[in-house]
Amino acid sequence: MQTHDLVIRHARAVTASDIFHCDIGISDGRITTLGQRLPAGTQEIDAAGRFVTPGGIDSHVHLDQPTGDGSVMADDFASGSRSAACGGTTTLIPFACQQKGGSLRDAVEDYHRRAGTDKALVDYAFHMIITDPTPAVLNEELPRLIQEGYSSFKLYMSYAALMLNDRQILDVLALARREHAMVMLHAENHDCIGWLTEQLLAAGLTAPRFHAASRPRLIEREAAHRAISLAELVDVPILLVHVSAGETIEQIRWAQGKGLNVYGETCPQYLFLTRESLGLGDDFEGAKCICSPPPRDKGSQEAVWRGLANGTFSVFSSDHAPFRFAGADGKRAHGDNPGFHQVANGIPGVETRMALLWSEGVCRRRITPQRFVELTATNAAKLYGLYPRKGSIAVGADADLVIWDQDKKVTVTNEMLHHNVDYTPYEGMELSAWPAMTLSRGEVVWDGSPRGTPGRGQFLRCDRPLLPGADDSDRGYTDYAPLFDR
Amino acid sequence: MQTHDLVIRHARAVTASDIFHCDIGISDGRITTLGQRLPAGTQEIDAAGRFVTPGGIDSHVHLDQPTGDGSVMADDFASGSRSAACGGTTTLIPFACQQKGGSLRDAVEDYHRRAGTDKALVDYAFHMIITDPTPAVLNEELPRLIQEGYSSFKLYMSYAALMLNDRQILDVLALARREHAMVMLHAENHDCIGWLTEQLLAAGLTAPRFHAASRPRLIEREAAHRAISLAELVDVPILLVHVSAGETIEQIRWAQGKGLNVYGETCPQYLFLTRESLGLGDDFEGAKCICSPPPRDKGSQEAVWRGLANGTFSVFSSDHAPFRFAGADGKRAHGDNPGFHQVANGIPGVETRMALLWSEGVCRRRITPQRFVELTATNAAKLYGLYPRKGSIAVGADADLVIWDQDKKVTVTNEMLHHNVDYTPYEGMELSAWPAMTLSRGEVVWDGSPRGTPGRGQFLRCDRPLLPGADDSDRGYTDYAPLFDR
Amino acid sequence: MQTHDLVIRHARAVTASDIFHCDIGISDGRITTLGQRLPAGTQEIDAAGRFVTPGGIDSHVHLDQPTGDGSVMADDFASGSRSAACGGTTTLIPFACQQKGGSLRDAVEDYHRRAGTDKALVDYAFHMIITDPTPAVLNEELPRLIQEGYSSFKLYMSYAALMLNDRQILDVLALARREHAMVMLHAENHDCIGWLTEQLLAAGLTAPRFHAASRPRLIEREAAHRAISLAELVDVPILLVHVSAGETIEQIRWAQGKGLNVYGETCPQYLFLTRESLGLGDDFEGAKCICSPPPRDKGSQEAVWRGLANGTFSVFSSDHAPFRFAGADGKRAHGDNPGFHQVANGIPGVETRMALLWSEGVCRRRITPQRFVELTATNAAKLYGLYPRKGSIAVGADADLVIWDQDKKVTVTNEMLHHNVDYTPYEGMELSAWPAMTLSRGEVVWDGSPRGTPGRGQFLRCDRPLLPGADDSDRGYTDYAPLFDR
Amino acid sequence: MQTHDLVIRHARAVTASDIFHCDIGISDGRITTLGQRLPAGTQEIDAAGRFVTPGGIDSHVHLDQPTGDGSVMADDFASGSRSAACGGTTTLIPFACQQKGGSLRDAVEDYHRRAGTDKALVDYAFHMIITDPTPAVLNEELPRLIQEGYSSFKLYMSYAALMLNDRQILDVLALARREHAMVMLHAENHDCIGWLTEQLLAAGLTAPRFHAASRPRLIEREAAHRAISLAELVDVPILLVHVSAGETIEQIRWAQGKGLNVYGETCPQYLFLTRESLGLGDDFEGAKCICSPPPRDKGSQEAVWRGLANGTFSVFSSDHAPFRFAGADGKRAHGDNPGFHQVANGIPGVETRMALLWSEGVCRRRITPQRFVELTATNAAKLYGLYPRKGSIAVGADADLVIWDQDKKVTVTNEMLHHNVDYTPYEGMELSAWPAMTLSRGEVVWDGSPRGTPGRGQFLRCDRPLLPGADDSDRGYTDYAPLFDR
Repeated sequence: MQTHDLVIRHARAVTASDIFHCDIGISDGRITTLGQRLPAGTQEIDAAGRFVTPGGIDSHVHLDQPTGDGSVMADDFASGSRSAACGGTTTLIPFACQQKGGSLRDAVEDYHRRAGTDKALVDYAFHMIITDPTPAVLNEELPRLIQEGYSSFKLYMSYAALMLNDRQILDVLALARREHAMVMLHAENHDCIGWLTEQLLAAGLTAPRFHAASRPRLIEREAAHRAISLAELVDVPILLVHVSAGETIEQIRWAQGKGLNVYGETCPQYLFLTRESLGLGDDFEGAKCICSPPPRDKGSQEAVWRGLANGTFSVFSSDHAPFRFAGADGKRAHGDNPGFHQVANGIPGVETRMALLWSEGVCRRRITPQRFVELTATNAAKLYGLYPRKGSIAVGADADLVIWDQDKKVTVTNEMLHHNVDYTPYEGMELSAWPAMTLSRGEVVWDGSPRGTPGRGQFLRCDRPLLPGADDSDRGYTDYAPLFDR
Repeated sequence: MQTHDLVIRHARAVTASDIFHCDIGISDGRITTLGQRLPAGTQEIDAAGRFVTPGGIDSHVHLDQPTGDGSVMADDFASGSRSAACGGTTTLIPFACQQKGGSLRDAVEDYHRRAGTDKALVDYAFHMIITDPTPAVLNEELPRLIQEGYSSFKLYMSYAALMLNDRQILDVLALARREHAMVMLHAENHDCIGWLTEQLLAAGLTAPRFHAASRPRLIEREAAHRAISLAELVDVPILLVHVSAGETIEQIRWAQGKGLNVYGETCPQYLFLTRESLGLGDDFEGAKCICSPPPRDKGSQEAVWRGLANGTFSVFSSDHAPFRFAGADGKRAHGDNPGFHQVANGIPGVETRMALLWSEGVCRRRITPQRFVELTATNAAKLYGLYPRKGSIAVGADADLVIWDQDKKVTVTNEMLHHNVDYTPYEGMELSAWPAMTLSRGEVVWDGSPRGTPGRGQFLRCDRPLLPGADDSDRGYTDYAPLFDR
Repeated sequence: MQTHDLVIRHARAVTASDIFHCDIGISDGRITTLGQRLPAGTQEIDAAGRFVTPGGIDSHVHLDQPTGDGSVMADDFASGSRSAACGGTTTLIPFACQQKGGSLRDAVEDYHRRAGTDKALVDYAFHMIITDPTPAVLNEELPRLIQEGYSSFKLYMSYAALMLNDRQILDVLALARREHAMVMLHAENHDCIGWLTEQLLAAGLTAPRFHAASRPRLIEREAAHRAISLAELVDVPILLVHVSAGETIEQIRWAQGKGLNVYGETCPQYLFLTRESLGLGDDFEGAKCICSPPPRDKGSQEAVWRGLANGTFSVFSSDHAPFRFAGADGKRAHGDNPGFHQVANGIPGVETRMALLWSEGVCRRRITPQRFVELTATNAAKLYGLYPRKGSIAVGADADLVIWDQDKKVTVTNEMLHHNVDYTPYEGMELSAWPAMTLSRGEVVWDGSPRGTPGRGQFLRCDRPLLPGADDSDRGYTDYAPLFDR
Repeated sequence: MQTHDLVIRHARAVTASDIFHCDIGISDGRITTLGQRLPAGTQEIDAAGRFVTPGGIDSHVHLDQPTGDGSVMADDFASGSRSAACGGTTTLIPFACQQKGGSLRDAVEDYHRRAGTDKALVDYAFHMIITDPTPAVLNEELPRLIQEGYSSFKLYMSYAALMLNDRQILDVLALARREHAMVMLHAENHDCIGWLTEQLLAAGLTAPRFHAASRPRLIEREAAHRAISLAELVDVPILLVHVSAGETIEQIRWAQGKGLNVYGETCPQYLFLTRESLGLGDDFEGAKCICSPPPRDKGSQEAVWRGLANGTFSVFSSDHAPFRFAGADGKRAHGDNPGFHQVANGIPGVETRMALLWSEGVCRRRITPQRFVELTATNAAKLYGLYPRKGSIAVGADADLVIWDQDKKVTVTNEMLHHNVDYTPYEGMELSAWPAMTLSRGEVVWDGSPRGTPGRGQFLRCDRPLLPGADDSDRGYTDYAPLFDR
C-alpha cells in the first residue's frame, strides 16, 4: 500500500445507503482506501467526526447558454463552477443547446469553446438540448455523440424556440432506446401557456405575479401524463425535470407503480418559494422569482417534501438559470418594466442547493443523510452515466467530497455567494449548515474561500445510463415488435 | 279532455328513472296523457304489457358525409334514417363537417341540402365538426349558429384533415363556455398514431389487424387526459366520444370524482367486438371491423360494461360510419387490398344499437331498463339540447316510442337490416329482443317493415345543453378571472 | 275515465330523470293520470307552475327507539311523522332494534306497538337493527320477517350495545344475499373510538368538541373499506349510511369503479355543520351537534356536495335522532355537564332535510331538481323495496307529493318546526324555499299547518331491493362456490 | 495499519447503493479497510472479480418455535442456522412468542434456552410475538425488553391463539411509538378466514388447494388497510410482513404516497409459487406449499416483482416455517390426510432465499445488485436496529459476506439443502447462481460445505429502528395531543 496523497481523518462518511466512520485515503485524485487508522498521508485533513458526503452533482444548470432574446446568462463556466464549488457541488451538467435548423455537433463544439480551458473549477459534462431532430441528427449525429460521451438529452414540451411536438419526441425516445441514452423532459403544455398568456395580456394583467397564472399546475400535470404515455409507448426510461406540484407527483407515482422507469427531479424553488414570491400588485421585484414551472403553494411544497422522502423523486437539482435583476441584459432585457411573458425565466441556485437541502431536509429530519446523497449525487451519476466515477464515496471513485459544518448558523445573503447574479431568492434565510470544505478529485476547491485554478475542472464523457431499481439497461431493442402488442 | 289521436294500451313504460304500467295518450304527435284506462283514442295500439321505451337518440352517426378520400358513405339520410327507425331509433344527430379553409355556415347549409326534404324518416339535428376555428368562425359564425339551433360540436384530436391543436381546442372550449354549447372530443393522440403507423409500414405490417397495433389503448388514455385537462382549464363540460378502454374510463372517473363535468360515450363495438375481429394473418375480411378507436380485448369489454352500469358513461351511441366492403367506393377506395391505414374507418350500427343493448344489457341484467333509456335517449337529449321534447316518456314530449318484443329470438343477419351497407359486424349474433314497433311523433315507422313517408322526419333545433347531475348551465362567464387563480 | 278525486293543476312535475308540465289526476290516493288539461276533479289544487316533487322518503330516522342509557327520544311516531309531513317527507323508515339476547320478532312487534294506530300522520316502514344474529335469528326469524315486509337491516360496526364483529356481519350479509335483503352499515371503527376516548379522558379532555377528536375521519374510512371488503367477499350489495368525509367517499367510488354494488348515504349535517359546530372551549352548547360521525370541515363539505352531484351518493337522509338539550332525559341524561362520551348521539333534522337540500342544492344549482328527487325519494324507494308504490310521480304510484314554494325566504327557527326537540342545529339559517303543501296518498298533510288525522299513516311492507344501475336482484345464490375462486 | 486477519482480494463489492472493485481487509471479525492493493493479510481469499454482497439478514424465520397443536418445527437453531449459512444468510431474526396469559420475559428467556450456546452457526436476534398485551406487559416488560435489545414485535391479525384485536394493536403501536420499537403485522382478516373455512368445510371441500380459497386476496388487502389506518392514527411506522398480492401492494403504495412510514416485506413463495402449487383435486402433496397468505397467481407474481423493483417493498425474507411432510409431527400432525385447515402453515426457505432472488432477480435484470442488497440485508438491519453493525459492506461493519458464484448452474434439490425439512417447494428449479462462500464475522461458514463450530453464532441486541427515507426516529411523543387534531 503506497502512501496516500491525502488522508481525510475521522470522517462520518455518507453514501446513498450507508453511514460509517473511517479515514479516507486518496491518491491521484481518487479514493483508494476507506479504513480505520490509515497510515499518514502526504497531506492530511481532519474531518473531526463531521459528515462527509460525495460532492454534489448538479445535473440541471444553465451556464453561458445563448438565449436568443437579448438576455444574457450572468454565469459562465468560470463563475458558475466557482459558485458550485463554494456550495459543495463538484460536477455540473449544463446544456449544449441545438439551434433550430442547426447541427447538434456544432452546438456541442460551440459549448466546448464556451467551457474553455481556463474556466472550470470543477468537472462537468454536457447534456444536449435537442430542438430539431432531423433525420441527420437522429441517424448520424446523435448515435456518434452518444458514443463520444453525450448520453443525455433534454427535450422541451414548451417554448416556441425549443419545443418538439409529440411525434418528434417519439423519434428521440426511440433513438434513446436504441442507443441507451437518457431523456429529460421539460413538461408544460405549450398551447395552454400561450392561450392563458393571451387572455392575461388581453386583460392587461402583466405583472410578474401573473406568470404563475399563466402556468397553473394542471398544465404541468397534463404534459407529465403525456410524456409518460410517450415513454410507455416506446418503452424507454425518462426523467421529468423540475417537478413543482402534487398533481404531477401523483402522475409519476402512478407510472412507477405500473413498473415504468419514470424518474422525477425537483429543485429548491419548489420547497422554499411560493406563488407569493412573485410579488403583490405590480411590484416588479417578484420577477426575481420568475421561473418555469412557477413556485406554487404550501400544499405543493409539502407534496414535494413527501416525494423526496418516499423516493418518488430521484434527483434534486438547482435549475440554476442566472439572469441579473439590475441592468438591461437580464430580467429586463425587454425593457425596464416588461410583462411577465417577457421576463427571462430562471433563478440562480447552484451554490445554495446543497446547503438548503442539508439544512432543511437532513437537519430537520425530513430526509436521512443517505437520501440526501442519493438525491444530490448518486442518482444523477447513475442516470447520466457518470457512475461509478462520480456520485459516491467508494473505492475507485473520484475524491469529490464535501465536509459539512453542521453547527454553523448561516444567514443567506447574496453577498456571500460567488455567482455573478445580483440577487438570491433565498436572501435572509437562516440555515443551520454549510460546506466547510469541498474537494474535487482530492483537491480543495472551497474551504471558506474558493481555491484552485480555474481550468482544473475536466470534461467528463458520459456512459450509458444505469437505472436505480430495475436496471434493464441492456434492452437496446432495434425493432418495435413488442410495441405492437398493446 | 279531447279524444286522443292514438292511445297505446297496457304499456310498461320506462323512463330513465321509472317503470310504470299505463296507457299512453297521444295527440298531435305528442304525449298528452299518461293514465290508467284512458278513453278510446281515434287509433289504438295494444302494447299488451310490453316494455315501451323512448325512441332511441343516436347522437353519433355519420350519414352522407363527404370523406375527401374517394370513399363514399353508403348511407344517406334516406337509408340511414330508415335503418334507424327499423332499429328503434327516432332521432339522429349526424355531423355537418367544416372543410379546412371553409365556412361553417356553408357546411351546415350543404348538409341541409344533403338531408333534403324527402329523405328523412325520423327527426334529426346536426352536430358541427369544427376543423378550422378562425376568428371569423369563433366570433361570428358560431355564436349565430348556436343561436339558430346548432349547439354541439365535435372536435378531433387526430386525423390530419380534421384535427385541432390544443390551442385551437382551448379557443373552441372558451367559446362553448361563453355561448353554452356542448363539445364532443374524439380523443386519440395523432402523433402517436402517425409514428406507430410509420413503424408498422416500415416493417411491412399492413394487414387490417395492424390497425389495432397502430392505436393502442394508451394513446386514447393520453388524449383523454389531455382533453380533460383542457376542459378543466377553461372550466367547461365536455363529452369524450366512443371510449373503448378501461384506462380511459379510469381517467373519466377520476375527472368526475374531482367534480368536473366530463361525460363519456361508448358504442356497441366496444362491447361485442375485440381486436380479433380485425382478422388473423393478412385476411382483408377484418377490414369490416376497422374503426377508431379499434375494438380491444375481453378485459376492456368488461370495463365498458361496468362503466355503463355504474354511470361513468352517459351516452351509448352507434358511431355508425357506413362503408361498403365490396366495390371500390368503400373499404377498398384505395385499391383492392389496401393497407390498414388506407381503409376507411367505421362500421355500420345504427339499426342494431338498441337491440344489442337491450338484449345483452337489460335481458342479461347487466343494466336496468331505466339505465338503458338514460343511455340511449335521455342523456343525449339533455346534453344536446333536445330535452324535454325528446328523450323521455313524459307529458308534453314527442311521442317517439319503441314497443319491445322481448320474447323474440333474433339471429342478426345483414339481410334483415335496412341500411345500405353490405355487411354487419354482428352477423350471426343471437339476440333475445328486437323492437316490435317504432313510433315517431305518434306515427308508426316500423312494425316489422319500415312505414311512413321519407321526408316526414323534421330538422330539430337544439337548445343549450342541460347537464345531468349538477346543472350549472348558467355559468356563461365572459371573463376568465377565475381561471387565473389555480 | 272516471272523475278524479283530486286534480293538481299546472304542476312542474319532477322525477328522478324528468321535468314536465302537467296536471296530476289522483284517485283513491294514487296517481292515475298525468296529462294536459285533465277534466275537472272532485277537488282541485292549483300548483301554478310550481315544482312538484315526490314526497320525501326519509330512510334514516330514529323515533321512540329505546336507548338503554336513560336518555329518551323526544319524538315518537306522532311528533316525528307530523314534523316529517311539515317538511315535505311522506314516508319514514325508522328502526326496530333487536336487544342483544332478545328476539328480532319481539323487537318488530314492540315497535309496531310504539307506532300505534293513532299516531302516524304519514306512511312508514321498518328497518331492523340486528344486534345478535344467532342461528335462530338467521335461519328462522329473518327469512320470515323478510317475507313479511321487513327487507332491510342496519348493522353497527361501533357501539358496544349494538355492534357486530366481522364474522357476524358476514353471516348477515350471506343471509341478505340468499333472501334478497338490503344491508345498511354504520361504519366506524369501534376499537379506535374506544382507544381515543380513553386517551382523551385520561388527558381530561371531555368537552363536547372532543367528540370530533374521538372519531377522526380515518376511522370512518377504515370501517368503510372493511365493510366494502366483507360485501365484496360475499358478493352482495350494501349501503354505507351517513358518510361524512372525502376519504370515505373515495372508498365508495373505488368500490363502484370495480363494479361493486356499494351505495352511499349522506345527511344535511355533513353539508352544513362543521367540527366548529361542536363549540369552543368547554362550552356545552356544542353538545347539540354531537352526532356520529361528527361534522367535519369545509373540505369535507365540498367533497360531500361533489358526491351528491356526481352520483357517488344514492341517498340523502336526515339521521333524525331527537334528544332534547334541556332537561335530564336528553343530551344531559348523564348529568348536567357530562363528558362528550356520555352525551346521547344525534341531532334532529326530519323536518329540515328537504328544504335544506332544495334551497342550497337545487336553488344554488349544485344539483338538478331531478337529482334532488333521486336522492330524497326515488333511490330510497328502490333500495328498500317500496318502489314503485313510493318514490316517484308516475301513474300508479301513491300520490305522495310536495308542492314547492320557491320564492319564499325562510329563516329557520326551532319555533317554526313541529318536532318535539327544543333546538335545531340550523337555527337562523336563511333558506330560499320551503314546501307549500305536502300530500300523502292524495290527502293534504301540510299547507302551512299540519293537516290530517294522526293514525292515517299506514305501515308499508317492503319488497326486495331494486338496484339502480345494474339490477342483478335475481342472484339469490344459495351456494358459495363462486366465492372460492378469488 | 495493522496486518489484517483476512484480506478478500478483487471483490466486486455491492452495497445498497454502490458497486466497487476493491480488496476487503478484515480484523477481529470486522471490516476495517476497503481499498486497492491492500497489504497481505494473515489469511487471503481471492474473490476473483466476483460479486461480494453483505451476508443476508433473514428477518422472518421460525425456528424451534412451540406450535401448541402437535406439530413440531423441524429446524432448531442448529439446523436452521446451518441451512442459513449455506444459503448466504448470516443473521437470523426468529420469534420469541408470548403465550396468551404468559409473560413476555418468560418467552424471551425460554427462547434463549432454545437458541442454546452450542447451536447457532450464525448470529441472531429475536423479534417478539406479542399475543397478550396486558398492562404489565405494556408498562413493565416491554419497555425494559426494548432497552435490553428486543426492539421489534410481530402482531397477528389472524390465528385465534396469536391474534390481537384492533384496540390491543393500538395499545402496542402507542407503546412502540413511545419506546421506539418496530411493529410487524401479519395482515389477514381472521373473521373472513373463519367464515370461509366454515363454508368450505360445510361443502366438504377440505383438500389442500382450498387453503387458497379460504384466504382470498381481498382479506389480505382489508387487513392491510386496517393496519395502515391504525398506524396512521397513532402516527407510528409499521411493516406489513409477507405481502402476497397486488391489491395489498396498492394499499402500501397509497400509504407511502401520503407520507406514512409503512413498509412492506415479501417472500420467495410469492414470486415462484402459485395457487396451483397447492395441488389439483384431493392431492395432499399440495400441503407442502400451504402457507399464509397462500401463493396467488401469475398476475400477483408480476405485481410483487414490480414492488421489489420500484421500492414499494423494503424487505425480502423467507418466512421459513419448517414442517416435515412425512411423519406425524409436521404437515400431518392432525392425521394422515387432514383438512387444509388442520395443516401446519409454512414452508421452508431460509437456504434458498438469497440464491432465488439473485438468480431470478439480479441475473435476469429485474432488479439491480444494489436493490438485492437493500432487500436482503440493509433495510432489515436498519428497520430492526442492527445497523451499522450488520447489513452493509462498510468500514466498521461485521465481516458478514457472501461471495457469489454467478456462472454456476444449480438445480435445486432438497438433498443439497441443509435444513431438516424433507422437501423444498423449489425442487427441480434451475438457478444460475449460488453462494460460493459465506463469511460470518470474517469466518468462513460455507464454502461448498458448512464450516465453523455450532455455537459460534452470537445473540445480537437490537437498537432502535432507523427508517430509510425520512428518519424521524426522534419522535418519541409521550402525549397524544397531535392525534386529536385530525
